[in-house]
Amino acid sequence: MKLALATLTTDFGLRDPHVAMMKGVIYGVAPQARVVDISHEIAPQGVAEAAMALKQAVPFFPRHSLHAVVVDPGVGSQRDIVLVRTAEALFLAPDNGVLTYVLDGRKILSAQAVKNPHYFLPQVSQTFQGRDIFAPVIGHLLRGVNPHLFGPLVPGLQLLPSLPAYTLHEGTARGLVLSFDHFGNLQTNLPQGPFATHPISAVLVRGRIIPGVSSHYAAVAAGGLGAVWGSQGLLEIFQRNGSAQRLLEARVGDEVALSMAR
Amino acid sequence: MKLALATLTTDFGLRDPHVAMMKGVIYGVAPQARVVDISHEIAPQGVAEAAMALKQAVPFFPRHSLHAVVVDPGVGSQRDIVLVRTAEALFLAPDNGVLTYVLDGRKILSAQAVKNPHYFLPQVSQTFQGRDIFAPVIGHLLRGVNPHLFGPLVPGLQLLPSLPAYTLHEGTARGLVLSFDHFGNLQTNLPQGPFATHPISAVLVRGRIIPGVSSHYAAVAAGGLGAVWGSQGLLEIFQRNGSAQRLLEARVGDEVALSMAR
Amino acid sequence: MKLALATLTTDFGLRDPHVAMMKGVIYGVAPQARVVDISHEIAPQGVAEAAMALKQAVPFFPRHSLHAVVVDPGVGSQRDIVLVRTAEALFLAPDNGVLTYVLDGRKILSAQAVKNPHYFLPQVSQTFQGRDIFAPVIGHLLRGVNPHLFGPLVPGLQLLPSLPAYTLHEGTARGLVLSFDHFGNLQTNLPQGPFATHPISAVLVRGRIIPGVSSHYAAVAAGGLGAVWGSQGLLEIFQRNGSAQRLLEARVGDEVALSMAR
Repeated sequence: MKLALATLTTDFGLRDPHVAMMKGVIYGVAPQARVVDISHEIAPQGVAEAAMALKQAVPFFPRHSLHAVVVDPGVGSQRDIVLVRTAEALFLAPDNGVLTYVLDGRKILSAQAVKNPHYFLPQVSQTFQGRDIFAPVIGHLLRGVNPHLFGPLVPGLQLLPSLPAYTLHEGTARGLVLSFDHFGNLQTNLPQGPFATHPISAVLVRGRIIPGVSSHYAAVAAGGLGAVWGSQGLLEIFQRNGSAQRLLEARVGDEVALSMAR
Repeated sequence: MKLALATLTTDFGLRDPHVAMMKGVIYGVAPQARVVDISHEIAPQGVAEAAMALKQAVPFFPRHSLHAVVVDPGVGSQRDIVLVRTAEALFLAPDNGVLTYVLDGRKILSAQAVKNPHYFLPQVSQTFQGRDIFAPVIGHLLRGVNPHLFGPLVPGLQLLPSLPAYTLHEGTARGLVLSFDHFGNLQTNLPQGPFATHPISAVLVRGRIIPGVSSHYAAVAAGGLGAVWGSQGLLEIFQRNGSAQRLLEARVGDEVALSMAR
Repeated sequence: MKLALATLTTDFGLRDPHVAMMKGVIYGVAPQARVVDISHEIAPQGVAEAAMALKQAVPFFPRHSLHAVVVDPGVGSQRDIVLVRTAEALFLAPDNGVLTYVLDGRKILSAQAVKNPHYFLPQVSQTFQGRDIFAPVIGHLLRGVNPHLFGPLVPGLQLLPSLPAYTLHEGTARGLVLSFDHFGNLQTNLPQGPFATHPISAVLVRGRIIPGVSSHYAAVAAGGLGAVWGSQGLLEIFQRNGSAQRLLEARVGDEVALSMAR
């Protein structure tokens, strides 16, 4: 397939020149390529965080994009770098589970270990393979080199544990806080689907009772606490014009309960 | 008009994948487009801050650029999203006043409410219309779709209060601190124009006396406090190689006085 | 030479619209240009930090790139802006030593003072020449304007002091911490070259003994302290899945000793 563009997701931050070095190498191989940053502010070694960012972002990119992830605590070890193909996209990542959520429910057409040094920089360091392996491979893929040339098929991929499921008992669904966004909103694992047709009487979180789910943020008074079905189709807790994370002193794993009206 | 490029100004930060999701949607619609980030580090819900960033940056972009702003505390409410045309540029923003300063003194050729769902994503969330409405509309505009197709004309726009004016009395101009930049320089509302031909004997701020306006930063000794006519044509207070904001414990609204020599 | 692309390195940060204003000006002059960010998070006035970032990043960019640096505490003073040509690349920077490390060991083909106002914005401020001089000059260079047109040759360039050298005495090499990266790894001035063939028995830093140099980060247990030959060919001290900087309360200039096995 002709690739539309490449995305980059790393834990390199934006102060150091590491992301730039990757781009320098990519553009050296593929001068006309388009490269889009998903995030470089993933927490160091934050494999699960990167996995969630990918799951969120990838569906909104053009078909036949290449999504590269370099959140790679095992860099230089025996872990493989894998190139995974689905009908919609290509993925290049360390085989450490970072593709778990984005691949969930998609058919994997092929998964290969990236082993062919013909497509690497001449010198490969043991600490910065983003520059020495990932970047030139991205460049060659963007130029149209056939993915099959990069290495042998692998039988399976490392997986992260599944995201925790919510429970439902006597009209109350119990889930938990998965993460926080930039605004301090609490992202939960409670999906809108099963509850879309039920009126919700209350949302409980950290001892606070929120009287139902709002249609949008501004439906709550300034400073007030609210709940909303967020842009991922999951329940989100927010403070209007504030940070619910700070207000509630919330942490990942805190319980969030949803009570249905009788 | 044929658009030169699109700029993005948001309060999304760079950790979350939200900016990337917007770009994914834009490039899906307009694969050849150029998108330039103005800032994604606007303070959450910082409508006035975004308005000032736009006023500063827009004049330096090519004519016929599209400037999109998603600082939108009212997302999902009845507030309109507006598409505003001047002779120089197009603007796409929530109708919350964020265009006030950049449009000040320019003739508005048309202002429309963006209502035509033909140009939106199939599913529009109530919390992330940057992705679901702004991004595809940006893509279609960059592809050359006629702005008139996006929705009906609106009679007027929401405006922010005017920036506070300085006063002039007996040879002393009194203004105030509007904002701080990355270096900790104090940006004021005292314009160079009226004072360009007057020798300035002193600048007073937070109990400190600065003996006149310097030609440039390095004209002051290291660690010293100075004043300079900044790149926006406004008086700026700085500490040489330091942060005047920290040194002075300055705050937005602090008075800055300019004494003219007799 | 036909330029491949331009890179930008500044201390402007990403909150303010200053980087965007430079890009607006560049794209106004050279609409098809490619501009890549190396870093905008250089510490304010961090000339040496920018010099090290350039030295690291430049070798990984395509030949005939233009590398522009605006870390410029002397902006508006009599310091020159210089345009430096080597066989591989062009450099545009204030003449304050910021090119010292990247040019070390390369032959300078020409160095000019950028003086020709024909290529500047019509109004040049004394505080933001990144926008008013650097950006339009970058644009014109990317469009193919001959470098010789920008100003007269200069006889030499300002230089930073050389990086401190390590010492070698009775089988122990003593170097020091030069900087920290985003992960809190300690970057030292101890090069791999001379020690590549010697077994290393211990690395000493801040009173801690590390038993040799590891092949990669994951060769050390989680939370453990290690040493590795980093991607710049220099010794690096790390904490596995943590920050050695925080763990050791390390500072720039701390001694790092390398003991060779007898």
